[in-house]
Amino acid sequence: MDLTGLLTDRYELTMLDSFVTDGSVGHDAVFEAFARRLPPGRRYGVLAGLGRLLPMIEAFRFDEDDVAWLLEQGVVGEQTADYLRSFRFSGDIDAYPEGDLYFPGSPVLTVRGTLGECVVLETLVLSVLNHDTAIASAAARMTTAAQGRPLVEMGSRRTHEEAAVSAARAAYLAGFASTSNLAAGRRHGVPTVGTAAHAFTLAHASEVEAFRSQVEAQGVGTTLLVDTYDTPQGIRHAIEAAGTGLGAVRIDSGDLADEAHAARALLDELGATQTRIVATSDLDEYVITALADAPIDGYGVGTRVVTGSGHPTASMVYKLVAVADSPGGPLRAVAKKSHDKISVGGAKTAHRRYDDGVLVEEWFAVDEPEGAGAATPVQVPVVRGGDVVHRPDLEAVRAHCAAAIASLPDVARIVADGDPYLRVGPRPEGAAR
Amino acid sequence: MDLTGLLTDRYELTMLDSFVTDGSVGHDAVFEAFARRLPPGRRYGVLAGLGRLLPMIEAFRFDEDDVAWLLEQGVVGEQTADYLRSFRFSGDIDAYPEGDLYFPGSPVLTVRGTLGECVVLETLVLSVLNHDTAIASAAARMTTAAQGRPLVEMGSRRTHEEAAVSAARAAYLAGFASTSNLAAGRRHGVPTVGTAAHAFTLAHASEVEAFRSQVEAQGVGTTLLVDTYDTPQGIRHAIEAAGTGLGAVRIDSGDLADEAHAARALLDELGATQTRIVATSDLDEYVITALADAPIDGYGVGTRVVTGSGHPTASMVYKLVAVADSPGGPLRAVAKKSHDKISVGGAKTAHRRYDDGVLVEEWFAVDEPEGAGAATPVQVPVVRGGDVVHRPDLEAVRAHCAAAIASLPDVARIVADGDPYLRVGPRPEGAAR
Repeated sequence: MDLTGLLTDRYELTMLDSFVTDGSVGHDAVFEAFARRLPPGRRYGVLAGLGRLLPMIEAFRFDEDDVAWLLEQGVVGEQTADYLRSFRFSGDIDAYPEGDLYFPGSPVLTVRGTLGECVVLETLVLSVLNHDTAIASAAARMTTAAQGRPLVEMGSRRTHEEAAVSAARAAYLAGFASTSNLAAGRRHGVPTVGTAAHAFTLAHASEVEAFRSQVEAQGVGTTLLVDTYDTPQGIRHAIEAAGTGLGAVRIDSGDLADEAHAARALLDELGATQTRIVATSDLDEYVITALADAPIDGYGVGTRVVTGSGHPTASMVYKLVAVADSPGGPLRAVAKKSHDKISVGGAKTAHRRYDDGVLVEEWFAVDEPEGAGAATPVQVPVVRGGDVVHRPDLEAVRAHCAAAIASLPDVARIVADGDPYLRVGPRPEGAAR
Repeated sequence: MDLTGLLTDRYELTMLDSFVTDGSVGHDAVFEAFARRLPPGRRYGVLAGLGRLLPMIEAFRFDEDDVAWLLEQGVVGEQTADYLRSFRFSGDIDAYPEGDLYFPGSPVLTVRGTLGECVVLETLVLSVLNHDTAIASAAARMTTAAQGRPLVEMGSRRTHEEAAVSAARAAYLAGFASTSNLAAGRRHGVPTVGTAAHAFTLAHASEVEAFRSQVEAQGVGTTLLVDTYDTPQGIRHAIEAAGTGLGAVRIDSGDLADEAHAARALLDELGATQTRIVATSDLDEYVITALADAPIDGYGVGTRVVTGSGHPTASMVYKLVAVADSPGGPLRAVAKKSHDKISVGGAKTAHRRYDDGVLVEEWFAVDEPEGAGAATPVQVPVVRGGDVVHRPDLEAVRAHCAAAIASLPDVARIVADGDPYLRVGPRPEGAAR
């Protein structure tokens, strides 16, 4: 993996430089990542990105060229340059498992180490979690809306070429069946699928020739795009080229419900009763919900999933919550108090209470070790002494996500907008420990 | 540079596989990238990403492991695998210069080559252009709103870690003064700046100690964040620590206009008449416009610029516009005609007319070589025979963008929402060639 040290805001390193200069760089500290709010209308969020983030924290280092450049740019002085040359995060991280739910106030990631090694991780932690979580949170709602019908993530062309790979991973862990993105298949093991573009049909002398060519290369199980010229004619050409065993037709324009009803009737009339109908074109959780009664067997979702369905970032923050004032000294809880941004200081351990399998409460304890009480702890150890100790594969993350979403009551899981289902704060009086 | 061949939708390669199978892979073809629309309210767009894209097209290749994986996944057959092993784009590309304006219908990128080598570039071309263009188009409006006061891009933590680097580059070319992102400084030469986070103040025993530490490490020209506890007290502490020569104070919360007026009065009262005021916290082109009369000397913009100010993708498409039906045969214009998506077939050359330096018209000619008429051609050759022949440095791109925006009439340049200033179509009757 490439080194990740420079995927960082300059102020992280100038703050580090000050900490080196004033001698506090080695004091113990605790930082936490959390979201103060969900996007408007969202009832829950899905934490994603952890599996990408942890190896990048191990790779958070600086080579000699990086350090020389930082010196030349005046970002750090010689003493801090030496610190960076040997930098390796050596602390501990606890986190909510990837794919789990979070709510406003959930302490999704807790970083313990020296002030210097914790402060510099802020930008990287937030970039990865905010992006991937935004995508997974939107994808989870689309998955619910699809009611078991498969969703293909096909938004690569609508987002940054590397964000596309991560978005495919995030959508998959939140319940999508597959992606169009080959790099996501290669790097992350996400199943890949593909149909054809309008260009493919246009490139041939006739639509039926295009379909024959695709069936010849891909087999009759392929999906033919039938709306380049005239959809009913396209469907007739598709069955002419592939026979009634054709896998699927794709419709990418028009009123999708009307088009799907007409396509189903025509396919059945032609004897292609098992040929599936796949719909694409500006779908999101709301459109998919509205299409629930149409005879559509699968959905392709592009722009709206890779842009978080209107909310392309998850607004997580990374805050110092406790720090020591001397080497080896005790931690004191800290929090910014001015104006509108109120935070709770101190390291937090999160717990949940379930009622007959349904999540009913989440709260945190401050500055106390996790107990073996009646409540279920949420955080798991993911890094110890700088080494990643938590490496679930993507299938396990996907299964965890499905189970977490299944623990929501129906009212919180459906797509209808509402307030956050839970808000997470200090343990209420009388709550089980 | 890493190989970019897999940053691609699966269907690009399955279409290629069909073209290989049916023998059309070597037929001549022309593809164009363009946007059918601008985001609602936008009067113009700023094309960005070209400088990143062109080297990635040179690197669009597949190593043996990639090809083996594609075979194993059933994406391509043996014949196409051989084609990919030796793949190198060898065609020609013309494009609008990076940083230039575009409007609905502007043919911003024209790719000429064989059908096979052109079709596979779609995903990469669109990922890069759609992302970077979305950021630059939003950033240009913020630049206008700031009326010459410097803007810092500081949104890295709100977007994917690699999108962050590209976003910093795109914002800079559209007029931002600098970025917080160190990798953007290192890779692209964007100037980097930084202040400090609330964590920095919280990590010290007192605010004034934090400020003394920062001034000690960074010098009195630094920017002190004064709103951690109480802003007026923070300003007093800042001047106590740095003296009246302090570079700047940053305010990150509260009503920014009120806070800035109060801060200016207090700084002046304390004798720090040259100390600048930098405002951050959820700024965008509308908020910056509303703050025009406040005594703010610079702005830091995060979330809203890296997410395209509500429009995180530019909705460009990449369409086949002409193709030959035989090896070496003549090109025929093609266009999808069904339903709501109407396109004009044929390769287009764009021209503009200026009136006293003000852009008044843009149109394209179809299937005719660029003439030496009275109208100004827009496209430039950027790739010839697969080699990049256009490598302006980022400062030149930034200057081109500033000049392009200056060619807009005031009514199109201001932030107020409206319809696209121009719509680009075939040459009107009587227009100068």
